[in-house]
Amino acid sequence: MTADVVPLPRKGPEPSIEPMLALTASGMNQVNQVILDRMQSEVPLIPALAGHLISGGGKRLRPMLTLAGAELVGYSGTRHYKLAAAVEFIHTATLLHDDVVDGSDLRRGKAAANIIFGNPATVLVGDFLFSRSFELMTEDGSLKVLRILSGASAIIAEGEVDQLTAQRKIDTSEERYLHIIRAKTAALFAAASRIAAVVAECNEEEERALDEYGRNLGVAFQLVDDALDYDADAAQMGKDRGDDFREGKMTLPVILAYARGNEEERTFWKAAIGGFRTSDADLEEAIRLIDSHNAVADTKARARHFAQRAIDALSIFPDGKARQAMTQAALFAVSRGY
Amino acid sequence: MTADVVPLPRKGPEPSIEPMLALTASGMNQVNQVILDRMQSEVPLIPALAGHLISGGGKRLRPMLTLAGAELVGYSGTRHYKLAAAVEFIHTATLLHDDVVDGSDLRRGKAAANIIFGNPATVLVGDFLFSRSFELMTEDGSLKVLRILSGASAIIAEGEVDQLTAQRKIDTSEERYLHIIRAKTAALFAAASRIAAVVAECNEEEERALDEYGRNLGVAFQLVDDALDYDADAAQMGKDRGDDFREGKMTLPVILAYARGNEEERTFWKAAIGGFRTSDADLEEAIRLIDSHNAVADTKARARHFAQRAIDALSIFPDGKARQAMTQAALFAVSRGY
Repeated sequence: MTADVVPLPRKGPEPSIEPMLALTASGMNQVNQVILDRMQSEVPLIPALAGHLISGGGKRLRPMLTLAGAELVGYSGTRHYKLAAAVEFIHTATLLHDDVVDGSDLRRGKAAANIIFGNPATVLVGDFLFSRSFELMTEDGSLKVLRILSGASAIIAEGEVDQLTAQRKIDTSEERYLHIIRAKTAALFAAASRIAAVVAECNEEEERALDEYGRNLGVAFQLVDDALDYDADAAQMGKDRGDDFREGKMTLPVILAYARGNEEERTFWKAAIGGFRTSDADLEEAIRLIDSHNAVADTKARARHFAQRAIDALSIFPDGKARQAMTQAALFAVSRGY
Repeated sequence: MTADVVPLPRKGPEPSIEPMLALTASGMNQVNQVILDRMQSEVPLIPALAGHLISGGGKRLRPMLTLAGAELVGYSGTRHYKLAAAVEFIHTATLLHDDVVDGSDLRRGKAAANIIFGNPATVLVGDFLFSRSFELMTEDGSLKVLRILSGASAIIAEGEVDQLTAQRKIDTSEERYLHIIRAKTAALFAAASRIAAVVAECNEEEERALDEYGRNLGVAFQLVDDALDYDADAAQMGKDRGDDFREGKMTLPVILAYARGNEEERTFWKAAIGGFRTSDADLEEAIRLIDSHNAVADTKARARHFAQRAIDALSIFPDGKARQAMTQAALFAVSRGY
């Protein structure tokens, strides 16, 4: 009883993020400049705290989507730099608040901002960056972009609250889980991609296609991220392996292992997700059970399904450097995770 | 060595908030409808948590300023209802985050949201309301309003971080304190008033006058609020008397008492604001010292100065019901606090 595996293309080179990085390199310099300029404040704690996270080796994947999308549709202006920075500010604000919400110790392999600067400052600097992102959008002046990004922001917050509600609830279904990650992660991927079509004044079909690319990529990305929490080396990933487990987050590896488990295993999961079995030995047992049901591998297979949908959404665009880079990026996301 | 006292007008009726309430009553019904509609979500925890605060007896003073300003300039449209709701959402989001930042137990005499729902949900529902406020503004479609309110939001967050930085710092000056409250409180009062002139397409002078009314009223309001923490009955105010003291917040009563105190008193204040003397007996001692230097009374006198400036800012508008109600509201704010 395992899920269908969507195979990776059998031929061709290993999927790589390099074409995406090359495609967006010069634009990302512009975006990074906007980010550095606009995280400044006369209150020194703000750039200190924001800079800790912003200069902390993030991949800036979301603004990269805006830039790649702009390349794809042949946009030759400069409006997307500011908007891509706005997208990254929304993401950074979300990360800061997440760290407070989850009580995280590590983020990207470094001490999380809340550990160094405390919860109060972390919450407030998140608010500052969030406000700044709306200032940037307002400066751009497109009400359509504002609608897309303010809508995405509300959906992200809804998704995060929904996730909180599902925490420690063993009966969370795969459907509910997908609904949550579409909101908390995929909505911003979708918006980041879509606004490229808006600034380029593309037609509705192209806008929708870029939205779908981002949305499916976001789901794939989160699935792989959730799989890695029961799989990868913590030091390498810059994330404490087992964080999701200890917090009782219902992610797909756990949902699958629970669904496929026998009575005894389900008893273990109820206790573990309920917060009564969270030791290192319990985590090892969880990983063993997940592995025995192929749940990490199948979570990654689900991710490949969404990555493939992201790739297919691009089919209305002419083949070329941008589309190939975005295709490679989607394959790369599910081959090893960023 | 006490500050000049700005006298209240010697004649005329006791200042009252009633004319303001009457002026805005029917409009506030519209605003409240928007607030109730737009705090809804498919995630039940969101309206539950938001409703706890929103239905918790808030005065909705900020949206009232938008409505009163609209009356003052003779605006006859309906755009201001949505925008006033957006202002209240920004304020509510700020309160929710403040409660987490301060670790508050009480808000408006009831258990604070973070006590009932926990910090994580409180942070995230704040984010949701904040996003919703930008959705409302975007629906209205005025980039000028968006610029004013996104700018105010960034300044509020800066002010809050600045306040955090000044916490437990006995050498905080009155100047610095005023700078902080202008940002954390007065910026939203100013924006709430100003946008009334924007929707009514007033000239720049009228816009600026409404901005100044709100800004000075906001400073006055915060001064009185800070005075009451060393003065009023906690049960009556719905605020734990002594919260500011225990958190080591540098508000004007403390700044004045410290400046006017002798060596021994200053030693006490250093220990108290430093967090080493926070018992009930220490609070009583603090109140005694503040009283002996007339620091609550003089803080209220400072508030009257700003209330008078707010009132004078209205002088460019014709006399009438709206201007009288706004004048009364400013006098009321500093005669007893809301």
